[in-house]
Order: sequence, then C-alpha cells, then structure tokens
Amino acid sequence: MAPNTAPSFRKKALPDPLPLDSGRELAGVEIAFETYGELNVDRSNAILVFHALTGDQFVASEHPVTGKQGWWERMVGPGKPIDTARYYVICANVLGSCMGSTGPASPDADGKPYAKQFPVITIRDMVRAQMRLLDVLGIETLHAVVGGSMGGMQALSCAANFPERTNRVLAIATTARHSAQNIAFHEVGRQAIMADPDWQGGAYYGSNTPDKGLSVARMAAHITYLSEAGLTEKFGRRLQDRDEKSFGFDADFQVESYLRHQGISFTDRFDANSYLYITRAMDYFDLAEEHGGRLANAFRAASDTRFCLVSFDTDWLYTTADMREIVHALNAVAAPVSFVELSAPYGHDSFLLDVPALDRVVKGFIG
Amino acid sequence: MAPNTAPSFRKKALPDPLPLDSGRELAGVEIAFETYGELNVDRSNAILVFHALTGDQFVASEHPVTGKQGWWERMVGPGKPIDTARYYVICANVLGSCMGSTGPASPDADGKPYAKQFPVITIRDMVRAQMRLLDVLGIETLHAVVGGSMGGMQALSCAANFPERTNRVLAIATTARHSAQNIAFHEVGRQAIMADPDWQGGAYYGSNTPDKGLSVARMAAHITYLSEAGLTEKFGRRLQDRDEKSFGFDADFQVESYLRHQGISFTDRFDANSYLYITRAMDYFDLAEEHGGRLANAFRAASDTRFCLVSFDTDWLYTTADMREIVHALNAVAAPVSFVELSAPYGHDSFLLDVPALDRVVKGFIG
Repeated sequence: MAPNTAPSFRKKALPDPLPLDSGRELAGVEIAFETYGELNVDRSNAILVFHALTGDQFVASEHPVTGKQGWWERMVGPGKPIDTARYYVICANVLGSCMGSTGPASPDADGKPYAKQFPVITIRDMVRAQMRLLDVLGIETLHAVVGGSMGGMQALSCAANFPERTNRVLAIATTARHSAQNIAFHEVGRQAIMADPDWQGGAYYGSNTPDKGLSVARMAAHITYLSEAGLTEKFGRRLQDRDEKSFGFDADFQVESYLRHQGISFTDRFDANSYLYITRAMDYFDLAEEHGGRLANAFRAASDTRFCLVSFDTDWLYTTADMREIVHALNAVAAPVSFVELSAPYGHDSFLLDVPALDRVVKGFIG
Repeated sequence: MAPNTAPSFRKKALPDPLPLDSGRELAGVEIAFETYGELNVDRSNAILVFHALTGDQFVASEHPVTGKQGWWERMVGPGKPIDTARYYVICANVLGSCMGSTGPASPDADGKPYAKQFPVITIRDMVRAQMRLLDVLGIETLHAVVGGSMGGMQALSCAANFPERTNRVLAIATTARHSAQNIAFHEVGRQAIMADPDWQGGAYYGSNTPDKGLSVARMAAHITYLSEAGLTEKFGRRLQDRDEKSFGFDADFQVESYLRHQGISFTDRFDANSYLYITRAMDYFDLAEEHGGRLANAFRAASDTRFCLVSFDTDWLYTTADMREIVHALNAVAAPVSFVELSAPYGHDSFLLDVPALDRVVKGFIG
C-alpha cells in the first residue's frame, strides 16, 4: 500500500478548520497538489483540474509511486489542449485520498491514523478544500475548472457552490447524481473491502492491509469503466498464454488475467479506507438534492458561467442521458452551455484515452 | 450453508461413469430431480426444464431450505403455460450444484468431499448428465426442453449435442457464448470467494464457510440481473429506515440494504464451491467453438427441431443482439425458429418475473 512508503508531496496546510457537510469540521487539513506552467501577473490564467476516484494530482508528471506518466499527459502540457505554455494548471489530491492530502491514513490529533474516525465527506467538501487551497495560493478566479467522472462532479459542484470562482466549467463523462446502479456497484466494492479480515475495522495501518478486498473492489469497478464492445474487441474469449482451456481456476481468459492485474496493481498505490470514503462521497452526490430537489436551482447563481459538457456514446456508467439532464437544468437558468456526445469505443474510460475529438472540444472551450 | 443441513432429495444414480469434456470421467454420479404431472403411456409428454446458475429442481414446489415457493410457479403447474395437467415436467439439479446432485460438496471415493478435486465441468456435461437421467427414467424423446439464462444455454446445448432427444427447444434470456464482460463479472465473484480466508482452498466442508466472499459474489452478480431503469424505479436514491444520510458506512440507501440482504441470504442456500464450478462452466460456454467455430454448425443436426427464442429489451447481461446471433445460425440451417423480444422493465430477471407476454409465448410454443 502506497501511503507508508510514499515520497514527500508538495502540499499546503489550510489555515483554518474545514467545515464539512456532515456538520463536523476538520482541523489541520493539508492539500497536496501539483502545478504546471506559470501564473500570470494578474493571476487570471489558472485552471483547476479535478481528478477522478482513483486519480491524483500528477495530471501531467510522473507518478512517484508507480513511475507511470501523468494520467492526462495527452491533454495537459505545452501545446496540448490545456496548454501549460499559456495557462497555470493546478491539480490537487482530493480530501480523503491518499497521495498527500488529508485522508483516513493521516494522523489525527493523537498522532495516530484517523482510520474509521475520519469524517465521512462529500464532493462539496472536496471542492471546498480546494477553494481554500486557492485562497492560500492567492488565486481568486479561475479561467476554468475541468474534470472527468468524479472530477466532473467536482466541476459541477464548484459551479453550483462557488460560482464566482470560475469563468468556465468543463465536465466530462459525469453525472449530477449517483444512480441506484452506481451506488450498487460501489457498495459491492465496499463490502469486498470490509469483508477482508485484514481490513480490521479500518485500523490496519502499520499491519497487513486489505489488499484482497481492495483488489476485488477494483476489479468490479473496472468492468464499469469499459464498454461491452470494447471488452469484446480487446479480449473477446482469447486465452492467456495457453492454447487450450485448463479446466481449472487459473486465469484461462485474457480478460481474467487483465482484471486480476488491475486489481492487484491498484493495491500498490491506493489506500483501502480512502476507497471507502471517496466512493461514499460519490454515492452521496446529488446536486439537485443539495439545492431543494431541483437541479436547475443548483446553477441559478452560475448563469454567467460558460459550461461545456461531454459524454461518450459507450459510457454506461454515466450516460449521455445523465448528462442531458444537466444540460436541461443549465438551459432552465439560461446559462451558456455547449454539449456534445462523442463516439468512442472505450466506455467511461474514454475521457482518459486517445479520443482526438475530445482534444479538439477541450482546446476549443478552454481557448 | 445449505448442504450440511439439507433434507434428503429425490434422486437417481447414473449406472455408468459420466464422461466429461475435460477428458476426465466421473463415477457414482447422482442427479436430484423433481417431477410434476404424469408421464403418459407412450412416454411422449415429458418436458425438461433446465434451471439457471443458482436455481434448483424445485421449479414448481416449495424449496426445502428456504421454504419459498418454486422459482417458476407462475409458469409451471396445472393450467399454467407449461401445463402439468397435460405434460410431465422434469427439473433436475445440475451437475456441480448443491441441491442433491453430485457436486464439489459430494463425497469422492474416499468418502470426503471433493472440494477442489471435483472436475471442472461444462454446460454440455450438465446436459449429458440429464440425458443419462432421462435414460434411467425411460424417456427417449422429450416434447420440449425449456430454460432461461444458464437454463437456456443447456437447452441450446441439448439441441446441438442431443438433437434426437427433443422436439422443441425454448431458450429465454440466454446466449450461445459467454462474452468478455460476462466472464469478467463472474471472475470478480470467484475472486471474492477465493479471497475469503474461510474458503481455505475449497476445503472448508465441516468448518467455517466462506460466506462473506460468496455474499460479495452474489451482490456483484445480482446487479447484472437487474436493469438500470428497474433499479432506479425500485430504489432510486431512497434512504433505508432513516430521514437523513448517516454520514457513515451503514446501508443508508435502500439499494445497499437490498443488495446486502441478497448476498447474505444466498449463503444460506448455496455452496461457494458450486458457485465457482458453475460460473466456470458458463464462462467456458461457446457453442460455436464446440462446433468448429461456426455457430450454425452446432445446429446442423437439429434442423427438424422447432425453436423458440425470447429476449428482453432491458436485459444487458444476455442481450437481444446475442440472441439474434442464435436466430441467424438457426436460419442458416433452415431450422424452424420463432424469435421475440419482449418489453419488460426487470432486466435479465424478467424471465422469472411477472411478464404476461412471456406466459403467452411459452403457452403458444409448448402447445
């Protein structure tokens, strides 16, 4: 598990306790972040990129644990659609995560890891923490906020709750509300983690970590990130390193081998409790509910903000229909919004992968 | 777990060892079954109903472990679409299962449970065992074979491998081949079971059973049995026994509570090793591959058999597109086939639920 061996992260301490939607507040919050490009003199060229559930701040630089390149290098960098030669790009590890920001593995007032004593947080809490980070960095208004999946939820939440902080909102492959099916898949993952005896009620820091449970959780979630057709094209029923079925329980099929690898490698870089807390925040997310039950109300103060929404035709996790509801809500408050459904074979993961049409949309909107 | 406490089942021993697709053979096979109605004098009115993954022989009578009514009472019985006043209905527990037929919990030659020494079986092996049961019962030719989901796979396999044994084949909500996505979901379930320390490499009989792992497996599978729209209608984001979110990890949402219940109650009636073996058999299922890579070849000897195929528009596990491939293969060998896609909100589980249009189709086809 990453946190015990992780390198030191670039981070800022928030000066005041952070109020949370639960009614609790969290003192001593630190937010880890990376930046790319240069802030201009009038501090008007900052773009905040929000990461997804298992993402991190290393949007365009090497991940210090895995050694892999940044998760959105194709989108963020000099001359890229989000051009760091022109913009100052900030990406912060979300509250509750495990790459340097305060989360369940962080020490509480006693100096011991919070574990299950960490408060349950919301998407809005994550955004609130990042707005406080901007305060520390002396950035009042962003050129844009950008995010896919849970990053898109944060972008929408930012527009709803802090409309004065950004001129543009780009939300990709996301939803304004976690559905029953979304919650169900997350609940399977949480139950898999909590069923692992190594979870120990969450108090596993310093001993065995619930890698088996976390691995199963990741496997289940991973299926939802891919399209059925994409899985068929990538793997079909092809066998892994063999000519015949084994008539056993080894990973006969490539798709089994792939999923097992996804599960196991995930445990090297992610904390199981963070997975519990962040999935919970996503399940709690319902932007309409936060605003009197009507989604349009969420955007009432954001009617001067420019929105761009992008869905993918093969994304069955957060569908085009989900995103159309957001468009309708924005239309109801006469906010300027452009919406495009892109065709891509990769399912939900399309926002991270090679979809040139997305590059063009992002470049056009960010300007 | 059921097998240790299960009542005695009505069953027959197969007189000869059963050859298996793996090349192994299995001696001392017993097949548990139930019958409804009376066999006529010329033994021509028998219908064999194949059950699904977690089903059993109690198609139209009370389940002896759960006390619940038969799983297809609305379809099978006097005056029902499969009319036991006219037909002799047989339903056998599949090979590898845990309701009386030989499976991993059964004693091997040493008298100890097979556990992981049980051979990996296929859908064709399951069907072969049931054809042997028919031999024992003195039934040569069936009026029809009928099945939904894995039952439909058996019905298709029966048509392909034992075409002389049945005049009619009714296959509902099924596929001729498990897709990469189908395999992926099953693999998550298997990994959840095998990650449970109580699984003990499969040798858990007589000690703690891997209920937590089996429960997670069931939860993951259960999501695939329901439609997204059905889940939304049934549960939406409604809370369970509370007015506010708990900001904890209890089952705040009804859908969480429901899934947890599905998982836990499943462990009362099902054996985890049976779940491993039967899901493996389903993943191995590819009727084309068994017949030279071309699905039409599978049905070449069945061109005099009458087929009826039924899909449901909200079934995303085995889709209408999957079933259309079967229709095309049957068309290629000029087998008489009727195909209907029914509209029902329940997803894959529609075949078990209240869909009056299905009743009419079944009644019309069975005659």
